[in-house]
Order: sequence, then C-alpha cells, then structure tokens
Amino acid sequence: MSESDSRADERIAVVLPDGSELEVDADATVEDCAYEIGPGLGSDTVAGKLDGELVAKEEPVYDGVELEIITDGSEEYLEVMRHSAAHCLAQAVERHYDDVDLAIGPPTDEGFYYDFDNLDVDEEDLAALEDEIEEIIAADYDIEREDVSIEEAEERLADEPYKLELLEEFADENDTVSFYTQGEWEDLCAGPHVDSTGEIGAVELLEIAGAYWRGNEENPMQTRIYGTAFDDESDLEDFLERKREAEKRDHRRIGNEMNLFSIQDVTGPGLPLYHPPGKTVLKELEGFVEDLNEDAGYDYVETPHVFKTDLWHRSGHYENYADDMFIFDVGDDEFGLKPMNCPGHAAIFQDQSWSYRDMPIRYAENGKVYRKEQRGELSGLSRVWAFTIDDGHLFVRPDQIESEVEQIMDMITDVLETFDLEYEMALATRPEKSVGSDEIWEKAESQLESVLEARDLDYEVEEGDGAFYGPKIDFAFEDAIGRDWDGPTVQLDFNMPERFDLSYVGEDNEEHRPVMIHRALYGSYERFFMMLIEHYEGRFPLWLAPEQVRVLPISDDNLDYAYEIAAEFDDFRVEVDDRDSTLERKIRAAHDDRVPYQIIVGDNEEEAGNISVRDRFEDQEYDVEIDAFKDHLAAERDEQRTDPDFLQD
Amino acid sequence: MSESDSRADERIAVVLPDGSELEVDADATVEDCAYEIGPGLGSDTVAGKLDGELVAKEEPVYDGVELEIITDGSEEYLEVMRHSAAHCLAQAVERHYDDVDLAIGPPTDEGFYYDFDNLDVDEEDLAALEDEIEEIIAADYDIEREDVSIEEAEERLADEPYKLELLEEFADENDTVSFYTQGEWEDLCAGPHVDSTGEIGAVELLEIAGAYWRGNEENPMQTRIYGTAFDDESDLEDFLERKREAEKRDHRRIGNEMNLFSIQDVTGPGLPLYHPPGKTVLKELEGFVEDLNEDAGYDYVETPHVFKTDLWHRSGHYENYADDMFIFDVGDDEFGLKPMNCPGHAAIFQDQSWSYRDMPIRYAENGKVYRKEQRGELSGLSRVWAFTIDDGHLFVRPDQIESEVEQIMDMITDVLETFDLEYEMALATRPEKSVGSDEIWEKAESQLESVLEARDLDYEVEEGDGAFYGPKIDFAFEDAIGRDWDGPTVQLDFNMPERFDLSYVGEDNEEHRPVMIHRALYGSYERFFMMLIEHYEGRFPLWLAPEQVRVLPISDDNLDYAYEIAAEFDDFRVEVDDRDSTLERKIRAAHDDRVPYQIIVGDNEEEAGNISVRDRFEDQEYDVEIDAFKDHLAAERDEQRTDPDFLQD
Repeated sequence: MSESDSRADERIAVVLPDGSELEVDADATVEDCAYEIGPGLGSDTVAGKLDGELVAKEEPVYDGVELEIITDGSEEYLEVMRHSAAHCLAQAVERHYDDVDLAIGPPTDEGFYYDFDNLDVDEEDLAALEDEIEEIIAADYDIEREDVSIEEAEERLADEPYKLELLEEFADENDTVSFYTQGEWEDLCAGPHVDSTGEIGAVELLEIAGAYWRGNEENPMQTRIYGTAFDDESDLEDFLERKREAEKRDHRRIGNEMNLFSIQDVTGPGLPLYHPPGKTVLKELEGFVEDLNEDAGYDYVETPHVFKTDLWHRSGHYENYADDMFIFDVGDDEFGLKPMNCPGHAAIFQDQSWSYRDMPIRYAENGKVYRKEQRGELSGLSRVWAFTIDDGHLFVRPDQIESEVEQIMDMITDVLETFDLEYEMALATRPEKSVGSDEIWEKAESQLESVLEARDLDYEVEEGDGAFYGPKIDFAFEDAIGRDWDGPTVQLDFNMPERFDLSYVGEDNEEHRPVMIHRALYGSYERFFMMLIEHYEGRFPLWLAPEQVRVLPISDDNLDYAYEIAAEFDDFRVEVDDRDSTLERKIRAAHDDRVPYQIIVGDNEEEAGNISVRDRFEDQEYDVEIDAFKDHLAAERDEQRTDPDFLQD
Repeated sequence: MSESDSRADERIAVVLPDGSELEVDADATVEDCAYEIGPGLGSDTVAGKLDGELVAKEEPVYDGVELEIITDGSEEYLEVMRHSAAHCLAQAVERHYDDVDLAIGPPTDEGFYYDFDNLDVDEEDLAALEDEIEEIIAADYDIEREDVSIEEAEERLADEPYKLELLEEFADENDTVSFYTQGEWEDLCAGPHVDSTGEIGAVELLEIAGAYWRGNEENPMQTRIYGTAFDDESDLEDFLERKREAEKRDHRRIGNEMNLFSIQDVTGPGLPLYHPPGKTVLKELEGFVEDLNEDAGYDYVETPHVFKTDLWHRSGHYENYADDMFIFDVGDDEFGLKPMNCPGHAAIFQDQSWSYRDMPIRYAENGKVYRKEQRGELSGLSRVWAFTIDDGHLFVRPDQIESEVEQIMDMITDVLETFDLEYEMALATRPEKSVGSDEIWEKAESQLESVLEARDLDYEVEEGDGAFYGPKIDFAFEDAIGRDWDGPTVQLDFNMPERFDLSYVGEDNEEHRPVMIHRALYGSYERFFMMLIEHYEGRFPLWLAPEQVRVLPISDDNLDYAYEIAAEFDDFRVEVDDRDSTLERKIRAAHDDRVPYQIIVGDNEEEAGNISVRDRFEDQEYDVEIDAFKDHLAAERDEQRTDPDFLQD
C-alpha cells in the first residue's frame, strides 16, 4: 500500500471556532472542509486560517488544527484582497516599465506595498499606474493558483533574480511551490488571494519609498510603492481622510515646528532631546501627576539608571529580558541600564524593616527606562530607546488591595478625563501557569472586581489573560480622531515580593509577604506626550501650552505699552512679538505657533488702558479689562480647562 | 679618564624656589646643596623635593632640577615624620609579635599606616603597641640610611616575602637599594626620614582594617594598622577632636539613620538609591535652584543619559575623557553614558537658528552624569559613579559676558549664604596653551574682573590657571567644622562653540560665534547633599527637613487630638507618634530622628485647645496658640531660615 493511499483512507479531525470537531479525509484542503460544513460556505470560501495563520483555501488541513474559514464577510478578507491588489500593482508596473525585477509584495495593516528593483518612477507616475490597476480590475481576470515543481519554477523565474533567491529557500523544505496567475501576469506566491481581479474594491497608491532588499542595510536599495485597497470608494475616502488628519497631527512635524524636541544623528537614535518648549510641557505633566501622587500619599524616591545585573537576576528580568537590555561590563562585573523601575523600588523597600502599621508603602518616581528596540522600528517619540515612566509601586497588605486599587483607579480616570480621553477598562484574570496561592489570587481578583463593580462602568473580563504573577486592570482610550491607544495599567504582583523576600511584621508578630502593585498614570511620558501632541494637534490646553499668551503691538509706538502688559501677565508664559512686521503677520505667526491667546495693543487700547484679545479660534474681542482677562486666564489654567470659553459664550 | 672622575669634575645647576640657580658638583646630593646655600640650612635638612617629588636628603640632584630643601619648618616635614612613625609602628609590632611579614608603610594625608601579614591583632592591642612606640621614641635611636647591593638586600630580606617582591621590581632599574635602620630594626625603604626616633612628636594608633596586598582583590588580605603623628600632643588632640566631630557628622551613618539613601551590593557600587526622606531633601534643593533659574530667565531642557559617541568626538571629550566613560556597543555604533551635560545642550542650541536679539540663551537641567571612578575610591555620596549636576549652559554674545556672569555670581552667593557657608573666590586667567583670540580673552577677562571688583569682596587672581578654552571664577567654601570644599564654578568657553560651529546672526546680518558659559550652583547634588548632611549633622533647616513636625500625644487618650493637630499642620511634613510608648521616649526618638519641632499634646493642651512646642535645642514652651506656631513655621520654612528663633529669643 503506497503512502498516498494510506492517507486517503485516513480520517482526521479539525477544530472549528465554536470548539466543535469536524471529521474530514486526511488529504482535505481548507476549501474541502468548508464544503463539508455546507456548500454555500464552500463556494464563498476565500482563504482559511490554520492555528491562526492565514493560508490559501487550497492548503491541506491536519489533525487537531484549529480551522477558521475566511469569506468576504471576515475581518481578514481585506488582507486577502489587499494582497491581490499588490499583484495588480506589480502587473501594472510591468505593463508600463521594461526590465523591472520583482521583489516582494505583501499586505500590511493599512494596505499593501510591492518592492521593485530597476524601476525609475516618481509620485507623478502613480496616477497612470492607478489607471492601469483600474483596467486590470475592470478586466476581471481569474486569479488562478497552480502548484509547480521547483525545476519548473526555476525556469519560469529565470529573469527574476530576487524571486529565484526566495525560491532557493522554499526549495529546502518543499517539492512544489505555488504560482498565482491573472491575465498575462504571474507571480511566485503562497497566497491567499481573491478569486478574480474584479473582486478587488477601491485602490489608491499612496507613496514611493526606498527599502532595502530583505530589510538589510547591506543589500541594494529597492523602490517600494505603497498603496491601499478597500471594499468600496466610501471606505477608501474615510481612510484617506483619517490619514490626512493623522498626518496633519503628526507629532514629529509638529514637534519640529513648535521646537518641542529633536532626535539627531549625532546624538543617537531613539534618544530624544527635549527643547525648552517641550520640557515646559513635560514639566507641567510631571507636576500634574506629582500633585496627584502627593495627595494620595505617595513618596518620591530616586533610583539609578544603571544597576549591577545581580539585581536583574534577583528580579527575574535577566532571564526574560536581557536581549532587550543595554548591558556592559565594568571590570569583572556586568551592569545594565534599567528596563524597568520595579526592582529598584523593591530594593529600597527591602532595605528597611516594616510593620503592618506602616503599610501601604507607596513609592513614586519619574523613572527613565531603556529598552533596545530594533533601530528600524524607532520613530519620533512613539518608539524610543529611553523613556520615562511616571512609575509607582505600592507594597500593601493583602487586605489593602481594594482600597489602594480604588485610589489608583480614581487617579487614572482623573488623568484621562483631564485630557478628554474616552476610555474602557478590562480585568485580566489568572492564567493557567501562575505563581501565588489560590487564596491570594481569589482574594485579589474579588477585590479588583468589587472596585470595578463599584464604578458602575462597563468593563470586559479577559479570563486567563493576567500575567503569571498577578491579575491586572487595563485601560484603553481613544484620541480626538478616534484612534485607540493602550492606556494605563494597574498590575498586582505576587512574584517580586517572593524574589526579593519582602516582608512586614503583622499584628500577630509574624513575618508576612506584602503584595506589590505596579501602576502608571500616563505610562510612558514620551508616548503620552506624542499622543497629546496629535490629540490636540499641538494646540495644547492653556495649562500645557509652552507659550500661553503673546502680546502683539500694532506698531512700534505701542511697544512700551506691550511690555507693560506683558509684565502684568508675568504669572503666565508670555512673550512680546517685538518684530518689525505688520499686525496681520504677527497674528498669523502667533496662530501658526499655536499660542492659545493673543493680546493685541494699539493706540486705542493704550489710551483706554485695556487690551484686545484674540483666541485660538481666531475670534477677537475689544475693550477687555486687563484684570478680567487675567482672572479668566488663571481659572482656565488652574482648572486645566480644555474648553476655553472666554470668547466662546 | 674614568666616568666617575669626569662626573666629579663637572658642574651642574639646580633651580631654587626663588628661581635662582645654584651651581654644584655633578655628584652633589640634596644635603650637599643645602650646605652650599649655608651650613645652618645644611644641618637642618631633613629631606628634599626634586621637581616636586619628596626624596631623602642623600639623593643626588641633577642638572636643571627644581630643588626645595625640607626642614622641620616645612609643610612636608609632617609627612617625613609620619613615615618615620610608621617605621616605629612596625618595629613595635615586631617586638610584640613573632613571624610577622612586613608589607608597606607609607605616610598618608592624615597620618600613616603599615600593612602586615600573619599578624593577629585587635583594637585592644593598640594601646600596648602605642606604649612600645613611645619607648622607641624615648630611646631616640638614630635613623640611619644605608645603600646596599641587590644581593645583600636579598640576604637581609630572606624572611620577608613581600619585601622580596618589591625588591625584585627595584632590581630591574637599580644596582643598589636603601635601608633605614633604627636600633635593632631595619626596613627596605626609599625614605626620607627624620634623623632619629626622638624627633617624632605625638603618635596615636587609630584603627585596624583589612587591605589587599597591592590593592588587588586577588591577593591575600593583610592587616593594616592606621595611625597618625603630630609635632606635639596639642596638635594631635586638635586632630582627634576634628576627627571625632567629622565621624559624628559622617553622612554615611546619618544617611542610614535618617533613611536618606542606600548603596547596596545587589544594585551596584557608586550608585545611590534615594529613599523617601532623602528624595524629599533633594526635591527641596531642586526646587530652590529651579526658582532661582526661573527668576533668572533660564529654560529647562532634558537630554538623554546615553549618546552615540559621535557627540563626544565632536565635543572633544572622547579624546580626553573616554577612559573615564562607560562605553558600550550597540550594533555597529558606539554609545556612552554622558560624563558631562554641555555637549547635549550645545546640540539643542545648534538645532535652531538664532538672532542677536534672542541672546542670551540659558539652558538648565538637573543632568545626571557618569564617571568611572576606581571602585576602591567610591565612598558614600562623596565619590560616586553617577551624580546629578544642577547644570546650566548659557550661549551669549561677547558683550553680554559681564551681565550674565554678574547674574550667575548673585545666584551662587545666594545659594552659599542660604546654607551659611563662608566662601572665597578666585579668578583663573589665560594659560600659555589656549584657544581663542587675544581679543576675546582680553574682553572676557576684563569683564570677569569688573564683576569681581564690583562685588567689593576679596578674591585671588590665579594667573595662567584658566582652562585652555576660557577663564573662570572658582568658589571655595568652608563648612560648619572648618573644612574646605571646592565650590561652584563659572567657566567661560570659547572652544565648544567652535567645535559645534554654533552661531547667531548679528545686527550686521553676519554670522557670529557665541561664547558658552558653564555654571552650576551646587555642583553635584550628591556632593552638596553629603556636605549639607555633615554641615548640619543631619539637623537640616526646617525647609529641608524630611519630617518637619512630629506630634507627640502624652497618652492614648490624646491620640484623636494629636491627629486633629496634625491635620492643622498638613501644610507641613508632619507625623504623629502613635506608638504605645512613654512621652520621654517619644521625645528622645523625635530628637534622635532629627525632627526640628515636636508638638506635645496632653490633657492640658486638649482642654485649652493649644499645644506645647519643643525645638531642636530641647527647649520647650507651653500654651502655644496653634495659629501663632503655624505662622512661625511657615515663615521659618519659606524664608529658608537657618536660625530658628521661635523659642530662642
């Protein structure tokens, strides 16, 4: 009996999303399984997911695999369609340009790209390529898959050096490879794809960039064309609108325009330098959290940025985190930049003896941490090597978890509401593999639950999604243009107190183990600052604005009065625009510089001893009393208002 | 003609301290030269200094050497005498203990030590050794020097393995070595020594410690006995009194008692962790300087702790400072922890374009820097690997030097006077080797001089002592027990603006080079904090005290009232001693914890609705009105008073 006969006779079971099992022939494909479930599903099948991995519907399934069928109603359908759109792009390029070498063309989170070598193209050529893609879609070519031998593939790809390089790798593990053909064009490709080019919706080419073959700087630089595809024009337009909005708010551009920060070649990647206006915003953010911390009974500590790696061995970070750490030797000892602040705080707690009456102990630190991200992934303030966490670590008795978490939740919601951020919460509970007794987990989870219940707000329970060392509450929030962000976390920890052998003496005179709580209100200052820049488009609320008020003298004759007025407002960050320029230009400059309020002073104001005020909405009011505006400003700042209403009643 | 004949015939010239030349025979010794100057000086000679190095009077001089004769009136005489005292200690030890191996026994800044192997001795044995030393001194043995051949030295030192090891090294470069003999005892030693043991004044043995042979941890641990010697008992007593005072104030002990900071094995050497009380003091210090900076128009910036070493190549630190830096590779690039903040600030300045109207630009940062001190030299907060400078860098037009330095001097004297520190100033001027034009040096020095002249305070001019890149003003101050400290510095810099190609556009529309000013008010927070702890013996002025007020209920019946009172004082750092203890003990604890004020409340106070107040001088006042004391406290704190006068009128 040959092997293939034996397989055909066997039956195997695949697991469906609802947990049920489906029995199929051992040589069944994804599509076969779909037909087995029902002929309608079978004919709708575009692709499949095997144990979470997206594959072509022609791929065979195997015993015990978790199978999901992808149809055009599925979330992943867009990914498949965009992959096909990438093929259309390559087909269009080869119709318009000779001797182009094809590299790779995958879908991405927001669309797709295709990389080409020997292609001389610029942004102006994209429209013609888009038109060509439209024609390919209109032609509705069947997209056909074909499995061919390695030898045949080599022949077909004789003119494609990059494809041959990829083929060589596949050949190590496979006897055949798949090609996808549409009209006159074909590509070495694992798929999956839609059935015909007519099924591709609305396509837009976005930009051209350089990219190294296989992402390696030592390889040739190729030409990458980015595009995106959606089901229809309306979805595409929505995306493009969101993209324009995001670009308008790009924190790197605004950061440069407002002189908030720089990241320079000579100083290094992922290592931002904060310029005075940026540091002013950071200091306000620091002060805000400092006030919250002090009201809540936190004590500030300060720990080094460099530690002997002995500390990370003790904390367990060395085992799990060393690859992401900056580590170096000094003499015979190994040192590292800290990737987290918690072990330093545990070391401070451990340095003293504690009574149950001292608990809870709450340490706070604006602690800089260092994580070695891939250099290619570093970007502005969103991905950096060094960032500061508004970190807090609490050492509490088990019976204090509820009240402490309650307090932290109040602080977090205070922060998120201050910045007009809508948020959601989720409770992540005990995973299968975990440390800590049943008793402490139950006690902790029930306390977290009652904190959440008491808030009368919806929250998700993510069963088994806690860390191995404790359950947690996660926040997620949405910014002004509807983007989702991972927010603050409240994380219980039963592990680190063990590793550091932390203890306090209880009322019973015995040693007890405290629970550690990790929490941050912003998370990383860098990321939160970046988000705020984009959220507010650089037009910060008054209390955060680097320059709060600018005085604009109408002519040089009003310069002295302008300085007098500036002195009146010296409790604010105020500047005088004393340049030799027209009022119109000064107004434009102040608006472009995102100064919340302009005070305009000319002969009329000087005679009347008052001011004119112009706000960020470009509304202007005349004959304003100095003290009245001062009072308004102070209130707007001190109440951290985001709805400036002076001229907006 | 033999070589020695030829030398005897030659004449050479040595240079005396007054710059004059003395001609002597080519084989003349230090002592010969002294006799040449005068027979009195010859017979008083104890030792000499050749080009600054202390040598025995028997050492030959050489042509062109700068010679200084050491007599018992010289500053260095104490060093010579202490070296002889170390010999007496070794002689005493060998009289009392058998089979001891001698290592080395040099003078130190504050006395001397001798290291021994195979010596089992403890503190209680020191008195007997002191008595023996007294006898050796009373015996007034001649201390005789003898030059012997290497072979003979080997024979004499056959039982002294450590001395033989030293001898082996000398033998590489010398035909003979010197021995010093006193009575029955001799030692391989280069000297110099006093003429007889009777010339040694008052000796005291101080302590016993372990020390590795040659300072290397891989060598055997030996026994080191520390001692000191002075001309007479009265000088010795003064020294011991100062030493007791310094020990009482030792910041490491007080830092531990007050829980200010820790330096732990697991976290690493020279890397202090600030505990809540220590961080409280630091935050007050930071805030004080921040207020000064903001009043003076400084802008805060924030720079990374890690930079690509490209930056240090540009600044020139790499060439001169790399050995003291923590440097590591990431991929193909080299990175380093910053040893100074200035290049980061120059990089921020350079990132923008500037007009003469923008100047001066003043950047401030509490910037942590890292310098790789020898681990053996690390000590508490006084020598660390990482310390924070209250750094400031100004970029000024040449015509602004005077007004800016004037402002900085005001800030520095404000700081020093706030902490009751007496200070002196010195102006260090252009050295021979320097960068920058004559014009800029003259302009700068004359501006610094007029700042100093205008203050109507004495200052030294240290000609040629400026840095190669600019002149500077140095401060030195004296603490409460008369110790001198290097203080803040104002440093002009013509070099870094060149290296970073910094510029501003002048009124003439041309590019001009700014001058950079480096300045710190405290210098290093770590060192200043350490000095303050010792200066105040941990009894900080109210505004700095980690715990400002402690409320002591006389009995548990007064506990509620105690908490009420604490709430009244919640604008201060206040605690309630709610322990089950006697009033007397609570008072003692508060005093030991160095809390500036105690509020004592019992039935009387509770009935009268007032408080009793006890101050750091242990004076107590009854029937104090709550508001009156609150007002006093607020004033004492806000005026940063160091003369608390509430109960001291």
